[in-house]
Amino acid sequence: MKAYAMLGLNKAGWIEKDRPSCGPLDAICRPIALAPCTSDIHTVWEGAIGDRSNLILGHEGVGEIVEVGTMVKTFKPGDIVIMPAITPDWGSLEAQSGYAVHSGGMLGGWKFSNIKDGVFAEFIHVNEADANLAFLPEGMEPETGAMLSDMMTTGFHASEQAGVKFGDDVCVIGIGPVGLMAVAGAALRGAANLYAVGTRPNCIKVAREYGATDIVSYKDGPLDEQILEKTKGKGVDRVLIAGGNVDTFDVAIKMLKPGGSIGNVNYLGSGDYIKIPRVEWGVGMGHKTIHGGLMPAGRWRIERLAQMVVNGRVDPSLLITHRLEGFDKIEEGVLLMKDKPADLIKPVISIKW
Amino acid sequence: MKAYAMLGLNKAGWIEKDRPSCGPLDAICRPIALAPCTSDIHTVWEGAIGDRSNLILGHEGVGEIVEVGTMVKTFKPGDIVIMPAITPDWGSLEAQSGYAVHSGGMLGGWKFSNIKDGVFAEFIHVNEADANLAFLPEGMEPETGAMLSDMMTTGFHASEQAGVKFGDDVCVIGIGPVGLMAVAGAALRGAANLYAVGTRPNCIKVAREYGATDIVSYKDGPLDEQILEKTKGKGVDRVLIAGGNVDTFDVAIKMLKPGGSIGNVNYLGSGDYIKIPRVEWGVGMGHKTIHGGLMPAGRWRIERLAQMVVNGRVDPSLLITHRLEGFDKIEEGVLLMKDKPADLIKPVISIKW
Amino acid sequence: MKAYAMLGLNKAGWIEKDRPSCGPLDAICRPIALAPCTSDIHTVWEGAIGDRSNLILGHEGVGEIVEVGTMVKTFKPGDIVIMPAITPDWGSLEAQSGYAVHSGGMLGGWKFSNIKDGVFAEFIHVNEADANLAFLPEGMEPETGAMLSDMMTTGFHASEQAGVKFGDDVCVIGIGPVGLMAVAGAALRGAANLYAVGTRPNCIKVAREYGATDIVSYKDGPLDEQILEKTKGKGVDRVLIAGGNVDTFDVAIKMLKPGGSIGNVNYLGSGDYIKIPRVEWGVGMGHKTIHGGLMPAGRWRIERLAQMVVNGRVDPSLLITHRLEGFDKIEEGVLLMKDKPADLIKPVISIKW
Amino acid sequence: MKAYAMLGLNKAGWIEKDRPSCGPLDAICRPIALAPCTSDIHTVWEGAIGDRSNLILGHEGVGEIVEVGTMVKTFKPGDIVIMPAITPDWGSLEAQSGYAVHSGGMLGGWKFSNIKDGVFAEFIHVNEADANLAFLPEGMEPETGAMLSDMMTTGFHASEQAGVKFGDDVCVIGIGPVGLMAVAGAALRGAANLYAVGTRPNCIKVAREYGATDIVSYKDGPLDEQILEKTKGKGVDRVLIAGGNVDTFDVAIKMLKPGGSIGNVNYLGSGDYIKIPRVEWGVGMGHKTIHGGLMPAGRWRIERLAQMVVNGRVDPSLLITHRLEGFDKIEEGVLLMKDKPADLIKPVISIKW
Repeated sequence: MKAYAMLGLNKAGWIEKDRPSCGPLDAICRPIALAPCTSDIHTVWEGAIGDRSNLILGHEGVGEIVEVGTMVKTFKPGDIVIMPAITPDWGSLEAQSGYAVHSGGMLGGWKFSNIKDGVFAEFIHVNEADANLAFLPEGMEPETGAMLSDMMTTGFHASEQAGVKFGDDVCVIGIGPVGLMAVAGAALRGAANLYAVGTRPNCIKVAREYGATDIVSYKDGPLDEQILEKTKGKGVDRVLIAGGNVDTFDVAIKMLKPGGSIGNVNYLGSGDYIKIPRVEWGVGMGHKTIHGGLMPAGRWRIERLAQMVVNGRVDPSLLITHRLEGFDKIEEGVLLMKDKPADLIKPVISIKW
Repeated sequence: MKAYAMLGLNKAGWIEKDRPSCGPLDAICRPIALAPCTSDIHTVWEGAIGDRSNLILGHEGVGEIVEVGTMVKTFKPGDIVIMPAITPDWGSLEAQSGYAVHSGGMLGGWKFSNIKDGVFAEFIHVNEADANLAFLPEGMEPETGAMLSDMMTTGFHASEQAGVKFGDDVCVIGIGPVGLMAVAGAALRGAANLYAVGTRPNCIKVAREYGATDIVSYKDGPLDEQILEKTKGKGVDRVLIAGGNVDTFDVAIKMLKPGGSIGNVNYLGSGDYIKIPRVEWGVGMGHKTIHGGLMPAGRWRIERLAQMVVNGRVDPSLLITHRLEGFDKIEEGVLLMKDKPADLIKPVISIKW
Repeated sequence: MKAYAMLGLNKAGWIEKDRPSCGPLDAICRPIALAPCTSDIHTVWEGAIGDRSNLILGHEGVGEIVEVGTMVKTFKPGDIVIMPAITPDWGSLEAQSGYAVHSGGMLGGWKFSNIKDGVFAEFIHVNEADANLAFLPEGMEPETGAMLSDMMTTGFHASEQAGVKFGDDVCVIGIGPVGLMAVAGAALRGAANLYAVGTRPNCIKVAREYGATDIVSYKDGPLDEQILEKTKGKGVDRVLIAGGNVDTFDVAIKMLKPGGSIGNVNYLGSGDYIKIPRVEWGVGMGHKTIHGGLMPAGRWRIERLAQMVVNGRVDPSLLITHRLEGFDKIEEGVLLMKDKPADLIKPVISIKW
Repeated sequence: MKAYAMLGLNKAGWIEKDRPSCGPLDAICRPIALAPCTSDIHTVWEGAIGDRSNLILGHEGVGEIVEVGTMVKTFKPGDIVIMPAITPDWGSLEAQSGYAVHSGGMLGGWKFSNIKDGVFAEFIHVNEADANLAFLPEGMEPETGAMLSDMMTTGFHASEQAGVKFGDDVCVIGIGPVGLMAVAGAALRGAANLYAVGTRPNCIKVAREYGATDIVSYKDGPLDEQILEKTKGKGVDRVLIAGGNVDTFDVAIKMLKPGGSIGNVNYLGSGDYIKIPRVEWGVGMGHKTIHGGLMPAGRWRIERLAQMVVNGRVDPSLLITHRLEGFDKIEEGVLLMKDKPADLIKPVISIKW
């Protein structure tokens, strides 16, 4: 089969590979909507997971099931499904402890385009299909569904981790596609004032549609100073981090109230240490809690989020700025993500077979 | 001063009473917007708190401060404030344990028109003013502010108690003013399917505006059967109870998933026992959790909710169907609440001095 | 193979049955220590799960693995394992939602001696072996291990549900084997005053060893009155229910503080409704939360509890009052549980092959 | 009156000062048992709170009330009370938000020997006496009571923050008096394996009495490597930090499982940044949560802990290694704390008037 893969550090391209085989609990899907992710770029061009050769890229998409294993009960060929980016082992000790995404070790549920081939292929293997796939709701376009594989569940997890409550003041740092979903999630948990940090006009537009009340720009001075000024020195109750780097935690802690919390969903690609400023962290005693975690996955999770979309609580299709047609447009989609033209939020590739 | 009071069981009317005096931590307010509550009706005409004579009624309103005690730091005469229905003792053991509203004993924070005079008076005494009053935000009309004294904080507490999460299916039983706020609160916590139980057309209209996805009527059969049918036998994750009586818990448990929870904010006026059906409660082991609690109060709480309104997360003024002008219209407002004409959700009385 | 089974309502006896076969994810065990449970008595002599014929009884025990399925990775023949009473489906939607024990429907993880044969057999089938079995720690006698299949994980779950915190006053109602484990669990969560309700001398003795500070008897008057007197009218923070019936909740609510909670682990065999007294439940608003749930299961859970025992945090072997030798003593053990002689807490049957 | 004070950086000594006056909500106490704390040493000899002159030191002690304000209801002259180190403003917004100890700003509840005079004086002023003082239980010696002002409530808060659960593996870093209380607290929350990091023989002895199962020494190699080896590469569920510095978080994160958490109660005196290692923090996504917070205070808290001591759940008097007699021995006690002889855990000064 044909697939788009990481060939080595800084190199990606089309390859031929054997069609994956289907174990008793697994499913094989054909893609019908795919979305490249910044993580794909990190993987190839920043060495985020080390050097790899002929590793098929991609972990966001909707597909049609073409084969299921003998022990699969819920799904059958012909079903249209959302394929979540993370596909845990649900019987593992980690899943039993409440952290399925770390099954088998930290981040161990992250299999696609990491420890096995990703979704940018003619045929896609999904482990534990009953637990890991989710039905695409009737009437939802597959391209929108692809936004649920990673963007929506990741962005919403920022609020969940930080524990946003009715009336909280919230700052979302970074309004790329994940950050925009974090904005929507914070509004949907009852944030009062919702500060969104970013500069790109089309991202700002969507941030406002998702519920941001103030836009803050890096260009106007240190973020913590801006937020402290806007909050009369009080700071915010929650900071959701969906962009930046290890230094971002420095400003996040500085703008946070005692008793507040941080929810990070940003991949941190470089730097030895996350920087938590000692004094503003209350010399160890300020009750400023720091969370950071990988997106929750699984059929239960994804189908619940999908039903929120069906009911109009949030429209993740606002993220889609570029629509491409045809399996062979995967490369163009990936390069869009790499080059990030000014008007890009998220590209999606639609595929007909 | 003049005031509208419970004169005895089944009797209410105007009385003259001494103006309250102001202790060192207290404030005295003049009302500028007042709202009668179903609780006032329960008090007078159902004997909810026993027989009382010359107890001034009312616990929802916005006022102007005319006097503050010597130890009050935050407020001064002239400030326009929301007066919450519940005014706890903040240093009490119960407040320290996280349950200020039960300071001094169960429901002990409920003072207005219960253990002291209420707000339907020319002058209103507020204990621990710094902790119990909340600034009316600039630009918010006082009548809207009056909806925060009880309706919004009570209705939102249903979701808080039940722990509504992203993607939950939620049923709200009862869509009077508190139930409508419960609907809004559930949507603002990320409910997916949101079933609202009620029949009055204008309540249904507001329920839909607040985010209800389905309307269910008592008239179409047992509620649990209707909900189980709509959810393909699965039931809902949360039931918010804002109407009905002790039997309502029977249907609530029957429509609830294992692992689900109930958040009750309804005053239960009669019956010896709340009815929890043994079999559907999993013979004791179904993990169906039952919560019921009085509204959170305090400056912190109310100002946070007010900021949500300022930012357009929810508009509690949709509850107001009847607007009356003048202090002497309090009686008319109370009788509206008692007689409940078909088009009433909530009356409010505006007062100029 | 030989097995001890429910033959029909009110009838139990030895039967011959085919040895179970082993699916790809399963294991087959031979029992080496077994314990009858009050539930077995409910099943046969109170019709708790309806009429059944030739259903093998028993759900508590330690065994030796004699066969594993082709997909089992963790265990191998010869391993000595604790077999938990509840054996969920770990990929199910319910497990993903945090309630594995309700996989496939309320209480659906309860399979042994309910929807499939139990452990009182020469060969025992365990579904999803990797996720459901737990290694017996080196040095732990199998009879002690059998106390972890149900008694310890169930009793400890009472405190978990009720959320016992440092310094809580706790009342445990019922000090049979599960109640005694609830006492131990409450002490191990930091209870201050710990009231244990019971009358049998050897149970009282163990309750004190497990940390009870006061013993309260049904014979000395209504429980709620006794507890309120001992707590100077304040009541307790938590009530753990491990005995009684639907009326027990009445006294439990009456002895509970506002903001307090109930953790029920008792099987409720009869009565239409759990009785929650309306007035003492704060007319719906007292913040007295009611939890009731089936024991948590799974390898992760059971091995953690086992390690607590290894480290001497608690000694569940104090429950064992009667020790029998040999597979054919199962019937004698069951009848002990049925007849409950005055000195019985828990019988255990040791088996050599 | 006579008092022992910080005279300036690196200088402490006896001073004369006016007896404090008693506001309407306050109390004045005479000390009967006092304990110096490492914080006093930080204050004087490390400049922890900056330069101060004639600031009376001390924040741990038991006293006798000699005067109460006109609005005080609970206490009266002659009552023997525990004086907690932190004395919040209970009506503040921060208290209403659940973080009383940060009333008026981060760490704002820390008043003694910080923003007002401490307890090493003949007369001690306590603000909001009803809410901040706690009765010394009958039969508890005052010296033991003094261990509750800070040591026990602080040490126990490590477990509370980290959320120690039944069966957790826990590492406590630092076994000075606070760390020892953290060990006791972790055992009392149901830790399974409990690793205590320290080297001083008498601290190790008490750590074992409090429930430590393994002692780990800095001298035997990097802590994270030792813990990972002991846990077969898995790490621990919780790390409680009660010693070390900003680098301690580096090893803490490295020894922590995904889904685990840190509870810090250590004062961090120097360094710009807390060091959170990026890779071992899961590149931002490992669900390793970091908590750090000041001790909970208030009458409710302290009386609950005191009742745990009364019931023998824990004996904080094991911390007391040096007992001095007489008000004029305060200086000797402080210098013991400064010089830390090998056999010192905690000194206490008993005072008769």
